[in-house]
Amino acid sequence: MMVNEFKALREKIAAFSLAGNMLSWDMSTGGSKKGMDYRSKMIGQFTKLHLELLTGAEMKNCLVNLEQSYDTLDEVVKRMYVLTKKAYDQQIKIPNDEAVAYAELQARAQMIWEEAKEKKDYALFKDVLAEILAYLKKFVGYRGYEAHPYNPLLDDYEEGMTVEILERYFEELKKGIVPLVKAVTEKELPYNLAFLERSFPIEKQKEFCLLLVKDLGFDLEAGHIDESVHPFTSAMHIKDVRFTIRYFENMFTSALFSAAHEGGHGLYEQHIDEQYEFTGLDTGVSSGIHESQSRMYENMICRSKPFWEYYYPKLKAFFPDQLFDTTLDDFYAGINKVENSLIRVEADELTYSLHVIIRYEIEKAIMENQVTVDELPSLWNKKMKEYMNLDVPDDEQGILQDVHWSFGLFGYFPTYSIGSAYAAQFYQAMLEAFDVPDDLRKGNYNNVNDWLKNHIHKFGSFKRPEKVLLDATGKRFDSKYYVEYLTSKYKSLYNL
Amino acid sequence: MMVNEFKALREKIAAFSLAGNMLSWDMSTGGSKKGMDYRSKMIGQFTKLHLELLTGAEMKNCLVNLEQSYDTLDEVVKRMYVLTKKAYDQQIKIPNDEAVAYAELQARAQMIWEEAKEKKDYALFKDVLAEILAYLKKFVGYRGYEAHPYNPLLDDYEEGMTVEILERYFEELKKGIVPLVKAVTEKELPYNLAFLERSFPIEKQKEFCLLLVKDLGFDLEAGHIDESVHPFTSAMHIKDVRFTIRYFENMFTSALFSAAHEGGHGLYEQHIDEQYEFTGLDTGVSSGIHESQSRMYENMICRSKPFWEYYYPKLKAFFPDQLFDTTLDDFYAGINKVENSLIRVEADELTYSLHVIIRYEIEKAIMENQVTVDELPSLWNKKMKEYMNLDVPDDEQGILQDVHWSFGLFGYFPTYSIGSAYAAQFYQAMLEAFDVPDDLRKGNYNNVNDWLKNHIHKFGSFKRPEKVLLDATGKRFDSKYYVEYLTSKYKSLYNL
Repeated sequence: MMVNEFKALREKIAAFSLAGNMLSWDMSTGGSKKGMDYRSKMIGQFTKLHLELLTGAEMKNCLVNLEQSYDTLDEVVKRMYVLTKKAYDQQIKIPNDEAVAYAELQARAQMIWEEAKEKKDYALFKDVLAEILAYLKKFVGYRGYEAHPYNPLLDDYEEGMTVEILERYFEELKKGIVPLVKAVTEKELPYNLAFLERSFPIEKQKEFCLLLVKDLGFDLEAGHIDESVHPFTSAMHIKDVRFTIRYFENMFTSALFSAAHEGGHGLYEQHIDEQYEFTGLDTGVSSGIHESQSRMYENMICRSKPFWEYYYPKLKAFFPDQLFDTTLDDFYAGINKVENSLIRVEADELTYSLHVIIRYEIEKAIMENQVTVDELPSLWNKKMKEYMNLDVPDDEQGILQDVHWSFGLFGYFPTYSIGSAYAAQFYQAMLEAFDVPDDLRKGNYNNVNDWLKNHIHKFGSFKRPEKVLLDATGKRFDSKYYVEYLTSKYKSLYNL
Repeated sequence: MMVNEFKALREKIAAFSLAGNMLSWDMSTGGSKKGMDYRSKMIGQFTKLHLELLTGAEMKNCLVNLEQSYDTLDEVVKRMYVLTKKAYDQQIKIPNDEAVAYAELQARAQMIWEEAKEKKDYALFKDVLAEILAYLKKFVGYRGYEAHPYNPLLDDYEEGMTVEILERYFEELKKGIVPLVKAVTEKELPYNLAFLERSFPIEKQKEFCLLLVKDLGFDLEAGHIDESVHPFTSAMHIKDVRFTIRYFENMFTSALFSAAHEGGHGLYEQHIDEQYEFTGLDTGVSSGIHESQSRMYENMICRSKPFWEYYYPKLKAFFPDQLFDTTLDDFYAGINKVENSLIRVEADELTYSLHVIIRYEIEKAIMENQVTVDELPSLWNKKMKEYMNLDVPDDEQGILQDVHWSFGLFGYFPTYSIGSAYAAQFYQAMLEAFDVPDDLRKGNYNNVNDWLKNHIHKFGSFKRPEKVLLDATGKRFDSKYYVEYLTSKYKSLYNL
């Protein structure tokens, strides 16, 4: 058996991933401006080294050998084998020169997207987008697929995810929330929401966010917090988990809930069992499960009333001038106010999934060759009208708003909504296990953290996403928990 | 010819070095405390990958091929070949298991040194130091040497350096400065030096240091400044050069001259010609030449009177409360005051080389098997008495003060003094080329930067150290410039 050789190769791959991650982190958090080119080049070098190792003769030997002795392997090595084999099979089918050309295209496309967005002009972006889609479709062709050409892309970010599952999920979700959004947006909230517009000094915001993530359990000796234009989390290692926050003086809730959101991603990574170090299992298992944890902390915990029953006096003590006339009820209403809006990243918890549905439907249409790149803006705008009743004033606030497509990230958006639905299902199971609101009212987050750690976090990528969900909740994925959670929360807040 | 294959291998080596450098930088500048272990392990992984590549079959083929076609290679590839071959020959002679065991020993020794230093107890450190020395001597045996067993270690940090050169250099230096130190330390400086003891707010110090390094020409878009316990410079790339400063509220000159010193290292790296990117020639050629540049900016420039004729009013405007009664002459005297002292890193420009001489003489005695690890503290203390007329109160302020030996850095200390001597020789050549003091009096650093860039910096490691010196100054290395520089400066300051 070649288990040790295989583990040594995985450790080398871990080293190359780490190097790439360090450079990317650096790029977003103050690495020298003029160093962009060399960093891109070196990130490319590490990607290449990673792929060479993944698809090289040594790995091939290991995989053949492990396949033959699969039944005798321990469970960790079995899972390492499965994930590595999957990545190997996928990579080996794509000709090397096309993989390299595609990587270069991605780098170029992102710059073109930035310019197009700035100029609010989709026409500048569409040709390169067409090139990206041509590659993606070609790669899907090489890889082969079952049932639907979108499925391999979905599976890239959420192991086992299919159009079939998503179709049912989004249908159920729409049925549940579209009427709710309509009802809610027709009502005014009878609260004093003046605090939302006030100015909160950034230094104080930073102090408060730090306090919050520490209280939530994030270990600052096993990671740190930085600033960047778009908040994100990056785990170098279980004991080195970093995330960023962006602060706006006149929109302090942005940093507050970014801290809770990224803190949730961070806690997931910090809680992974150390036995998985350098195995490739030492990171969250999928985008959807990851997003479920960030949205758990952001929404189920930090946008809940019981949480603020304990925490609001602390916040008020930090910002007496800004919150002098704001009651707990005002505050709770303000942070949960629902509004149809153009921009996904600024959306409230209820309308958020509508933004995702729009993207999902467009991506599916693309993969079905039902729509050309020329037709995308009008399709986008039509769907915004349909789901949000909004007219899109320009491409920047429409089809160009997200960076994802310029990276070739097709299949990723659905995980944002799926993650929220997972979170609701996990939350329901947690409610059945112990009195979560009571803990939150006491400022006690230990039980929450322990439950999430023991049912989800500690496994890293050892279990498949659907297995994590099944083991933690005793049930298969079901959208009803999410619909019920949203319905109950917003009916109560809006007194419907 | 296999020039392209060779360049590709060098680029891979560059990637591994970069990854190791990033992790080390991270370790010293706020990387998570609990991440120390994984970082050490991954630094080890990258070192291993680097060595595998350096000594692997591909590299061996390249080197054989390049040797055969050496005369037809361009000058850059010739130099790349020479440096790579040298590293290859050196590494190939050391058995792999011994190299790994030694690396582990280094990591362990540093922790033991830290504890011993804290407890002021050399006895705790001596056994591991003996182990390190046993390895070093064994490796020198494998590598072979000419004339003296210390020579290979000297050559590791200063290509071409030998005991023969150093013996002459240090003899001449001692003859020149020992009487000078004696004369100077017997006199009192008739100036008001009260400012040296005052408190300078750290935020203002940071602001001023930033201004200073920018004015000196350091490009903050091609690097950045951080804080750490020991100031150091690390170049990720020509366009990503980082250094650290440490700030003390009650010793503001420390940060000030650290900024100038590390800024000098940084300018060297930033000025290297981009054609050397990823070739291995894209960094300063030797420790001595590097130190010559840091000490050039720190001492010849920033501890000179003409510099402060322009810059002192700026400093005074930053710190009006601390400098209200301090004249330019007081300030100049304060930053150049000579004192026999126990600690190298706090020494003034004149006595600094005495600290280095002590270490050089001890290292040479070790390599000649003239002294055992048991005898080292008494040898150290005897030499402190001889050169500085000081009694060493404890090991922390004596033999345990420097981290170097715990890393196995034997042969490194001489470059600190050699660098200062190079600096004086470069400075003399610069004085002959244009009126440096006149520029400094006007706050114009362009000519200085251009001269250093065009005569030293831009070549990176393309030229051997002695060739850099010869081409820039028209002369071989000569200690007289350093002795003359120190004599003239301190005779004038101390009115001798």
